[in-house]
Amino acid sequence: MASTDDVSVSQKKLMASARSRTTFDVESLTQVLYGDADTIRRRREAWARVEAAIGTSDTSRLPRRYANTSREDLYLDGLELGKAAFDDRAKFGHDFFDWITPRYTLFNYTPFGLSTSMFTKVLQLMATPEQQSRWLVPAMKGQINGAYVQTELGHGTFVRGLETTATFDVAKNSFVLNSPTLSSTKFWPGAMGFAASHGIVMARLVTAGKDHGVHAFMVQLRDIQTGRALERIELGDIGPKMNHNQNDNGYARFDNVVVPRGNMLSAQASVARNGAYTKRANVHDKATYGTMMVTRSKMTWVISIQLAAAVTIAIRYSTVRKQGNFAYSSDPAGTEVALIEYRSQNYRLLTSLAKAYAIFFASQHCEAAHREFEKREREGDYSTMPSAHALIGGMKAWSSTIASEGAEDARRTCGGQGYLATSGLPDIVQSLTVMCTGEGDTHVLFQQTARYLMKWAARLRRGIEQPQPQQTELPEDLKYLAESQFTEKCSDGSLGDLTNADTQLFIFQRRAQRMVAKAESKLAEMELKRGKTKAQAWNQHVMLLMSAARAHVEYLVLRDFIEATAAHKIQKTAVRRVMDRLRSTFALSTMVNPQSADAISFAEDGFLSAARLDAARDALNDLLDDLLPDAIGLTDAWDFTDAGLGSAIGVRDGNAYETLMRWTEQLPINVMARKDGAGGRHAEAWERYIRPALLSKL
Amino acid sequence: MASTDDVSVSQKKLMASARSRTTFDVESLTQVLYGDADTIRRRREAWARVEAAIGTSDTSRLPRRYANTSREDLYLDGLELGKAAFDDRAKFGHDFFDWITPRYTLFNYTPFGLSTSMFTKVLQLMATPEQQSRWLVPAMKGQINGAYVQTELGHGTFVRGLETTATFDVAKNSFVLNSPTLSSTKFWPGAMGFAASHGIVMARLVTAGKDHGVHAFMVQLRDIQTGRALERIELGDIGPKMNHNQNDNGYARFDNVVVPRGNMLSAQASVARNGAYTKRANVHDKATYGTMMVTRSKMTWVISIQLAAAVTIAIRYSTVRKQGNFAYSSDPAGTEVALIEYRSQNYRLLTSLAKAYAIFFASQHCEAAHREFEKREREGDYSTMPSAHALIGGMKAWSSTIASEGAEDARRTCGGQGYLATSGLPDIVQSLTVMCTGEGDTHVLFQQTARYLMKWAARLRRGIEQPQPQQTELPEDLKYLAESQFTEKCSDGSLGDLTNADTQLFIFQRRAQRMVAKAESKLAEMELKRGKTKAQAWNQHVMLLMSAARAHVEYLVLRDFIEATAAHKIQKTAVRRVMDRLRSTFALSTMVNPQSADAISFAEDGFLSAARLDAARDALNDLLDDLLPDAIGLTDAWDFTDAGLGSAIGVRDGNAYETLMRWTEQLPINVMARKDGAGGRHAEAWERYIRPALLSKL
Repeated sequence: MASTDDVSVSQKKLMASARSRTTFDVESLTQVLYGDADTIRRRREAWARVEAAIGTSDTSRLPRRYANTSREDLYLDGLELGKAAFDDRAKFGHDFFDWITPRYTLFNYTPFGLSTSMFTKVLQLMATPEQQSRWLVPAMKGQINGAYVQTELGHGTFVRGLETTATFDVAKNSFVLNSPTLSSTKFWPGAMGFAASHGIVMARLVTAGKDHGVHAFMVQLRDIQTGRALERIELGDIGPKMNHNQNDNGYARFDNVVVPRGNMLSAQASVARNGAYTKRANVHDKATYGTMMVTRSKMTWVISIQLAAAVTIAIRYSTVRKQGNFAYSSDPAGTEVALIEYRSQNYRLLTSLAKAYAIFFASQHCEAAHREFEKREREGDYSTMPSAHALIGGMKAWSSTIASEGAEDARRTCGGQGYLATSGLPDIVQSLTVMCTGEGDTHVLFQQTARYLMKWAARLRRGIEQPQPQQTELPEDLKYLAESQFTEKCSDGSLGDLTNADTQLFIFQRRAQRMVAKAESKLAEMELKRGKTKAQAWNQHVMLLMSAARAHVEYLVLRDFIEATAAHKIQKTAVRRVMDRLRSTFALSTMVNPQSADAISFAEDGFLSAARLDAARDALNDLLDDLLPDAIGLTDAWDFTDAGLGSAIGVRDGNAYETLMRWTEQLPINVMARKDGAGGRHAEAWERYIRPALLSKL
Repeated sequence: MASTDDVSVSQKKLMASARSRTTFDVESLTQVLYGDADTIRRRREAWARVEAAIGTSDTSRLPRRYANTSREDLYLDGLELGKAAFDDRAKFGHDFFDWITPRYTLFNYTPFGLSTSMFTKVLQLMATPEQQSRWLVPAMKGQINGAYVQTELGHGTFVRGLETTATFDVAKNSFVLNSPTLSSTKFWPGAMGFAASHGIVMARLVTAGKDHGVHAFMVQLRDIQTGRALERIELGDIGPKMNHNQNDNGYARFDNVVVPRGNMLSAQASVARNGAYTKRANVHDKATYGTMMVTRSKMTWVISIQLAAAVTIAIRYSTVRKQGNFAYSSDPAGTEVALIEYRSQNYRLLTSLAKAYAIFFASQHCEAAHREFEKREREGDYSTMPSAHALIGGMKAWSSTIASEGAEDARRTCGGQGYLATSGLPDIVQSLTVMCTGEGDTHVLFQQTARYLMKWAARLRRGIEQPQPQQTELPEDLKYLAESQFTEKCSDGSLGDLTNADTQLFIFQRRAQRMVAKAESKLAEMELKRGKTKAQAWNQHVMLLMSAARAHVEYLVLRDFIEATAAHKIQKTAVRRVMDRLRSTFALSTMVNPQSADAISFAEDGFLSAARLDAARDALNDLLDDLLPDAIGLTDAWDFTDAGLGSAIGVRDGNAYETLMRWTEQLPINVMARKDGAGGRHAEAWERYIRPALLSKL
């Protein structure tokens, strides 16, 4: 196949032409996302080095993970990727791959992923300085490859239910670790199947017959020389998953495993030589919250990048894939047009692209909230913990759901080709979907946010008569709940231009305020008037409570978008103009996209009239027309490498069909078939399963 | 691990207890779904024989497809499954596996899937009686394993764009088949990669330099003895897909392949010995429509069963998985409760279960419409084609989208375990999602339905002044558009009990009528007043048009549910009562579930007040309470086998954890690790990637 095939030339031309229509300076937008020019240069160099090391720089070559798909091969792929990224980080002293892989997936995609993230984070929060010197420094150098061993077969989110025991034996001056039941089998920890040398094992501490609840223990899992599981520890892989098969999520069972007393992480609680237990009040939970917060905050950031990656592939493919005849009804012989020209296509892709930017800016809010929490934490001030926890959990819940749907929808816009692994899209979709359940299920997290909202909404209703010691006034994020403008201005006639940021924010604020107040009053009514318990009332109205949390989060996300793209943050007019359009696209499509969750809550109280909603639909149509020339520029700004995307149909130069066919021809199954005609095992299969029927004389 | 582990015993007890709460006779409901007692017995026997033949009857053994996951192994798995099902069908003379596999996936999941469905269907419609005797009868016996070779790398839905050519050569009395460009490479046909002996190839017929458009040609692809591709034909696999890797979807290129003149399927058009071309007016397209209709109709049926399968697994797991503390706020030491007790969990699962039933009944409507079309077709009457085509396409578009979302949501209700391949859920989700794009993309099909609706809506507005020859009055499915009650009764005060079928149908009718009329008037306004072309107006309002199609389909689905569960169809009161509850759950959740697409269109015109919507939410809460005891019975009724579901966590007896651990321990990667300690290639991997870092002196 010549690379000068007509369609290859024309696809590259289509892409170049689309790129040339960009109305703004793409590099400036990249800087808005990732930092100054120097950071971006170093970022690009790091990616280039890792891609060269693992041999994925040449996009005409089939990426190995699509060639070799057995469980074993994928694990080896993860080892190679993880090692290359980890080594580059150590050698060049950067943190680009601390939470994200060079394939834009979450840190725990590789068997080395935890050492730079959760494993070390837990040590920072739970280990004493002496313990940190023993484990934290080596872990950061890669001399320990750590797993965080918490989840059990029978126990996930509800940590208090964990069954693994660590019983202190005074005679041995050690803990004895056991998996007393089938359901106590540790199940899911990343890197535990084959790669981890050590694990931080969460187990119930028992001293002198008394259960002190869950504590953390540093346990060596494998012999360093051989990689074999140490005696009395059974380790294995949990098997093929929907994705993330580059990681060896594992299971573990402990049978009287002896762990030295000094291996209990003791910054928050400790056991003395004589077995006496001491605990610092409440600090333990707060350290746990700290770990959860940083992880969820980073997840939200990775989620935005993964959604952007999926949309980038789909927009590129839609730019070079022609199909059908736009003027179907009047010109049967007309030429085919690029998919992106269809409103149904660009509506879906540009609204999802707007969401990717929205989630990115929201993740910056999460980061800032976490930084502020950490700063105060060092001074012993935990006052911002409830608000940061509710914010970050809610953002992670909302963004993972939104992004999963958006990436899957982007995949579908590529038709059959999006179903191929070589499109790169299944990987992204399957990797994003686990974000909805991992590290806090969406429905659980929305309820946590709702619980925080309900606490303050109840206080507001009662006139804040019972202020808490550390929080006497409404947290910043909740101030809008007390503003009366929303209940006063009750006609939509007072609304201004729908593409105006203030107007949009007003609509989102008003909706969130109404939903929060409504949920709180329903709860109160059930408890007070109908004599139900708090839990019963909550369970009955849980859908309403989650809707209130979602409305609150969507208000904050829109506010973050407005703030992140304000004039003092983005100097270049052309960049700001396109970001304004994207923000309006996000705001209006959240209201009127038929796929938006709970959009009915914008309309059901009659505040927004049917005519106003139609005006929003018309404005959105105009915005999409305006954004269309910038579709390629807005995806280029994310600075994805071809190797990172791993997509035949989403290559930057537009050469989709040729790349796809080249990769397809390189599949081992096809190489083998060309060698021996029918393909090794397939020749046998033909003889066994197919030929007998073809030659039968039924 | 003893099978008498406490948790194993308690999970089985939980399941038995939940099953015992069923309020109706499950077998009677199974008969509503699948037919009389004798059919159900024969069905069960067929499943049991095939499962015994392929060795999947014993649920304590890990299913092979989770053990061996390479591209080659999955293809072999598909061959074995397909062959066993095909042989059973031939030997025992039933049609159970014509369109669905014993794993409840669509026919084309195996390399033998087309012979009983599309391949033979096309022959029935396009081949002459003489050609049928040559190919149809052998194909039905398995003496030909056929592929339907239409889609090209560059051309899917838009069939007119196909580039493959079949040029008639008078001297050779043959067609010469060519793939003139990269984008003309045939790409996607099932079974074409390695298994098909023959293909029906769609190519542009050219005679004496004249292009007659796309026609069908029977082409032998492989040598029957060796399975090798015949000369001048290049064949290969298109590589790993999101799922359906048991099938060898393939690519093909033709280089001057000679095909005898008699191999053009000639029931609708033919080429004479001298090259003269004759075509029967319009019959060709109609035959194509016939194939599309039967395929989409069967897909809708399979979709309902797959959604039910996903929900069955999730409901069973939720029944035996305990987590968290329901009364979290008042009883910190309380026992954990089964997941299904949480409203957020049973809301999601029971509303999806209601959708599975709704889609099933809708698929019966599709079947009936297709049967009626075929009956008339035989008499040369094509009058019901437009309505059947719009109905079946719309139903397939709607159901595939709804079911994909529902299955993915069911997967997420199982948390991490739902992400494991061994849960069986990823297979179902990934298999369902291709239904949204395959055989007609959802967004394209909704637009086809919308086109049909707009044609009639325009006539209605103009007073039906231009009746068509064969259709002088509104088709049955559209009669409601002309009824004036919807515009007259404009206050929601006149609505009755929200659990009443008539009330629900009225709400759905009214919404659909409004959406159809609105879309039509927007189109007309743009064309007439703003001077846009039909195509421009369509593109601008395409989201509204698809919403109108969706509203119309949802009205029909509700109507079908009501009719299928009427008293004359279901005699047993207890069964009818539970089906009434399910129908109300479907109707009300379509309105008020925050996840429902375009629910805003129920509310935006103010017909349903905020109070009425809250009443619907309350009624739904009560319905879910009522349905909860029947959750297991309603899933058992689908009569899934454990082997068919292939789910460790969804086994019928509730023994989830033990089955999952047994399967996990049997994974080849774990068996190998137990043998040599570190696991063969993993020992090497340890030495190469991990040990050097652990022992480094950085």
